[in-house]
Amino acid sequence: CGAASAQSTVTLFGVVDAAYRNVANKSVSTTPFGPAYSVKASRSELANSGLSSSRLGFRGVEDLGGGLSASFWLEAPITNDDGATGVSNFTRRSTVSLAGSFGELRLGRDKTATVMNEEQFDPFGDTGIGGSLIIDANEASVPGSGYGSNGTYKRASNMVQYFLPRLGGFYGNVAYGLAEQTRLSPDTAASTNTGRHIGGRLGYTTGPFDIAASYAQNDTSFTTGSGAAAVARPGKVKTFNLGATYDFGVAKLFGEISRSKDERNALNIFTPGQDVDLTGYLLGVTVPIGPGVIRASYSQVKYDFNRVPVFGVNNADPKASKLALGYVHNLSKRTALYGTVARVSNKNGAGLTVGAGPSYATTFNRTALQAKSSMGYEFGIRHTF
Amino acid sequence: CGAASAQSTVTLFGVVDAAYRNVANKSVSTTPFGPAYSVKASRSELANSGLSSSRLGFRGVEDLGGGLSASFWLEAPITNDDGATGVSNFTRRSTVSLAGSFGELRLGRDKTATVMNEEQFDPFGDTGIGGSLIIDANEASVPGSGYGSNGTYKRASNMVQYFLPRLGGFYGNVAYGLAEQTRLSPDTAASTNTGRHIGGRLGYTTGPFDIAASYAQNDTSFTTGSGAAAVARPGKVKTFNLGATYDFGVAKLFGEISRSKDERNALNIFTPGQDVDLTGYLLGVTVPIGPGVIRASYSQVKYDFNRVPVFGVNNADPKASKLALGYVHNLSKRTALYGTVARVSNKNGAGLTVGAGPSYATTFNRTALQAKSSMGYEFGIRHTF
Amino acid sequence: CGAASAQSTVTLFGVVDAAYRNVANKSVSTTPFGPAYSVKASRSELANSGLSSSRLGFRGVEDLGGGLSASFWLEAPITNDDGATGVSNFTRRSTVSLAGSFGELRLGRDKTATVMNEEQFDPFGDTGIGGSLIIDANEASVPGSGYGSNGTYKRASNMVQYFLPRLGGFYGNVAYGLAEQTRLSPDTAASTNTGRHIGGRLGYTTGPFDIAASYAQNDTSFTTGSGAAAVARPGKVKTFNLGATYDFGVAKLFGEISRSKDERNALNIFTPGQDVDLTGYLLGVTVPIGPGVIRASYSQVKYDFNRVPVFGVNNADPKASKLALGYVHNLSKRTALYGTVARVSNKNGAGLTVGAGPSYATTFNRTALQAKSSMGYEFGIRHTF
Repeated sequence: CGAASAQSTVTLFGVVDAAYRNVANKSVSTTPFGPAYSVKASRSELANSGLSSSRLGFRGVEDLGGGLSASFWLEAPITNDDGATGVSNFTRRSTVSLAGSFGELRLGRDKTATVMNEEQFDPFGDTGIGGSLIIDANEASVPGSGYGSNGTYKRASNMVQYFLPRLGGFYGNVAYGLAEQTRLSPDTAASTNTGRHIGGRLGYTTGPFDIAASYAQNDTSFTTGSGAAAVARPGKVKTFNLGATYDFGVAKLFGEISRSKDERNALNIFTPGQDVDLTGYLLGVTVPIGPGVIRASYSQVKYDFNRVPVFGVNNADPKASKLALGYVHNLSKRTALYGTVARVSNKNGAGLTVGAGPSYATTFNRTALQAKSSMGYEFGIRHTF
Repeated sequence: CGAASAQSTVTLFGVVDAAYRNVANKSVSTTPFGPAYSVKASRSELANSGLSSSRLGFRGVEDLGGGLSASFWLEAPITNDDGATGVSNFTRRSTVSLAGSFGELRLGRDKTATVMNEEQFDPFGDTGIGGSLIIDANEASVPGSGYGSNGTYKRASNMVQYFLPRLGGFYGNVAYGLAEQTRLSPDTAASTNTGRHIGGRLGYTTGPFDIAASYAQNDTSFTTGSGAAAVARPGKVKTFNLGATYDFGVAKLFGEISRSKDERNALNIFTPGQDVDLTGYLLGVTVPIGPGVIRASYSQVKYDFNRVPVFGVNNADPKASKLALGYVHNLSKRTALYGTVARVSNKNGAGLTVGAGPSYATTFNRTALQAKSSMGYEFGIRHTF
Repeated sequence: CGAASAQSTVTLFGVVDAAYRNVANKSVSTTPFGPAYSVKASRSELANSGLSSSRLGFRGVEDLGGGLSASFWLEAPITNDDGATGVSNFTRRSTVSLAGSFGELRLGRDKTATVMNEEQFDPFGDTGIGGSLIIDANEASVPGSGYGSNGTYKRASNMVQYFLPRLGGFYGNVAYGLAEQTRLSPDTAASTNTGRHIGGRLGYTTGPFDIAASYAQNDTSFTTGSGAAAVARPGKVKTFNLGATYDFGVAKLFGEISRSKDERNALNIFTPGQDVDLTGYLLGVTVPIGPGVIRASYSQVKYDFNRVPVFGVNNADPKASKLALGYVHNLSKRTALYGTVARVSNKNGAGLTVGAGPSYATTFNRTALQAKSSMGYEFGIRHTF
């Protein structure tokens, strides 16, 4: 095919976003009678994806007549600060679709309903150091806690998805991501669905109001025991969230609640598994000011590790909160300058950060340290094409 | 250079093909007096490349005047089901050419003449679960048999190729792929050409008839002995094939024969190497029906392992056959829905599959199993751009 | 955004360059009373990047009004001879810029000022077997000599760069590449800036004359001691170069001098570090002949390893020289045929090559060999798009 036809069928698009970023993570010693140490681990860097995730993609739509259309979307994450990642994969999205009045059938790798909701109802769109703490917590495993390793939280491969057509103000989708596990028949071992994703979303928007709820079930694998006794066992992480925005014109309000449950199969009747929960909420606001917009959010997450009081003392569950404030100055529809500051406070052993930067220092003078707070700021430029 | 000039010189093209695929591979126990076990290993997946190989490419032609032209072609394989492979390599094709009335000089990585013939004379074009058994067998090494490890069967790097201009109905090419081995002079060790590919093809087409023969010699490396006594030694795989099609209008017939010979240098005069052969043939048909086309093929391969009768019992060579049936429904020139079923039968220890899916189960209850049959079906959508 | 808008914002560009190349590297034995061996290691290959570096890139400019513009540039190295490297990274360049009458602010990975100068003042543009010996020597570490491991010599990541606007004939830039090292506070270990790049360039051009000087300081890391006593220690490589060209019309003259100093921190006062120097110069000429151009250059490098005379015999420092001659025949502005021959002579233990090909043989019949000379030729086709 010639150049002319190619031009009409493929759109090349992307984002190149670079920012100066500084993150400082403070750990403190917590031994009751030991020395009171405080160690700060900090790093300055030229980062990518402060305002929008850097990417390069190819997409196109073909009109098949009769209201039908076929389309594709291949989108790669790129790291433009160091050039290390080019178009080596299309893990952001790689789909082929058939659409019509019935809606859209979409095959391939894509975002989950869970994260579509979280991006939509976060003033920072889950990007940069200001992004919601809920996603960071859901994606981070907590060693020894029974929580974590949820590889299909944000995106899933091998999905068959159906998207509703716009029905009045309703929108939504259901998704099934195949586990692609080999089955043996007959088989003595129990079959596993690790890697499977089942999810969906239903939303409604009218005028300035928008609300959507999502649900997802991700089949995971976790390990009990250690060394030679380590056994990989199946688990499930189930996530529900609900978000809403209301645009008053002078300001747009954001709110979201989220609850994840990590269910692990009991190894046997003597060691029953206990579900571990992670709940979170977010409140946010954006205020347009001329060609710019101020963004602010407060998010909080809390784990429920089924802890029991020790010697009568309440053994409180970890929790963390985050405050983020930023300003975006649009030079055009495609290009913007931006700055963001964010701070995360950890309690009872939580170890979350603003989503970037170095690890917390864990020891000082042979004294163990515990994550305390993470402070970051960044300013940069975002250019889309 | 500006956007306008770029548009006239580069064509972006590709295929995004996704299918639901199920493959079940059955193994059976063959011990004469042991238990009769039958184990099925099956897997369902969202696969790519069921009808056409998923890809993304860049190509362009420059008119140099006087009938001369320069051109390039960079084509990457992509995995759109999981997004894992983006444009990380151009192993499908990466060439630069100079063409004129003399024909075309083409430099770089490309398909071999062998596989150009096999794609052209296979109703399934060597793609999806319906593709010819000949390629699958030629690419699969058979452990312990003296057959396999032919890395340049389908494609070769570092090639210098010459393509004939169209001369009446004749077409064809010759190719030399450099081994790029370091030579020492003086040197005590024998020099090796491992990786070298020499091949060519000559075809003739007139009206509804098309016929072409190809030959290739691929310098390989194999290992004799094991452990500390393992010695890498040079070998050669020589492949000849001949294919033809005749288009009757209501149906198009396909036929191909193929013969590969794996020649391994004798280690010494006491252990002379014996050539191991692989012969195959294919018969196929396509029948256009309105906007669609039915495709069917039967292919068979047989190894010649130079086996000798054991205790007077004939120790038959492995062979396998494949039956494939499919339907392609074109929604447009670019977009099609398709479905295929295929089945492979193995005899005498052959272990071929429909070209995808899980491995055959090899044991059950400590009893060794032998590959028996592979059954698969898939249906999907193919979109080109 | 639709196809039309994308076309106006993204330019797809690249180079596909393939050449037949043969390089032979000769080593000789130097034991005073031993046998006089001479061993040649040679290799023929289909290579890429003989005239211009093979690449594929995406770039675009957006006019922001008021003289301001935003732009991006993503450029991947590709290996079109074997297709092994696609657009897997953008390590050639990945930047986003804001430009105006004030100049250009550029963020990301890019060439250093050092190499911009070296390409500009080398008739072979630091590409193919004819490229300047200065770059090859600066990038090659010399084991045991205290010289080498300069990862940011040619390009650096995480840079903040400022480019002058054209001020009369002046041009230039300053660059700061962040080390992105984690700092601990309080910290007992000394902080390191390994990976940091600081550089800049100032040039002046008027009519046929062009001159530019560059300076760079690259923070490196080197290892003292070996095995368990190995200690990674910070060092600095400082490079200055100065180049000029004068275009007489019938011929264009090239000249460059370069000096690098590898400064390594003293481990303690008993083993003070001594700077190791590498100096080089280049003389070159290009002569246009109809649609073609003849290119020739002579370059020389010399190490200063702070060697002391042994038994009163002068223990001379290694040095090497290179002679390169080539012809480029332009078939169009975009496509050219070319041929180059080059030869490197090593003295006193230098081990440089023409920049490609096999390693020097190091032993023969248990006698150690020393690198002597490297001879190469290549001819190919370069197509840009």
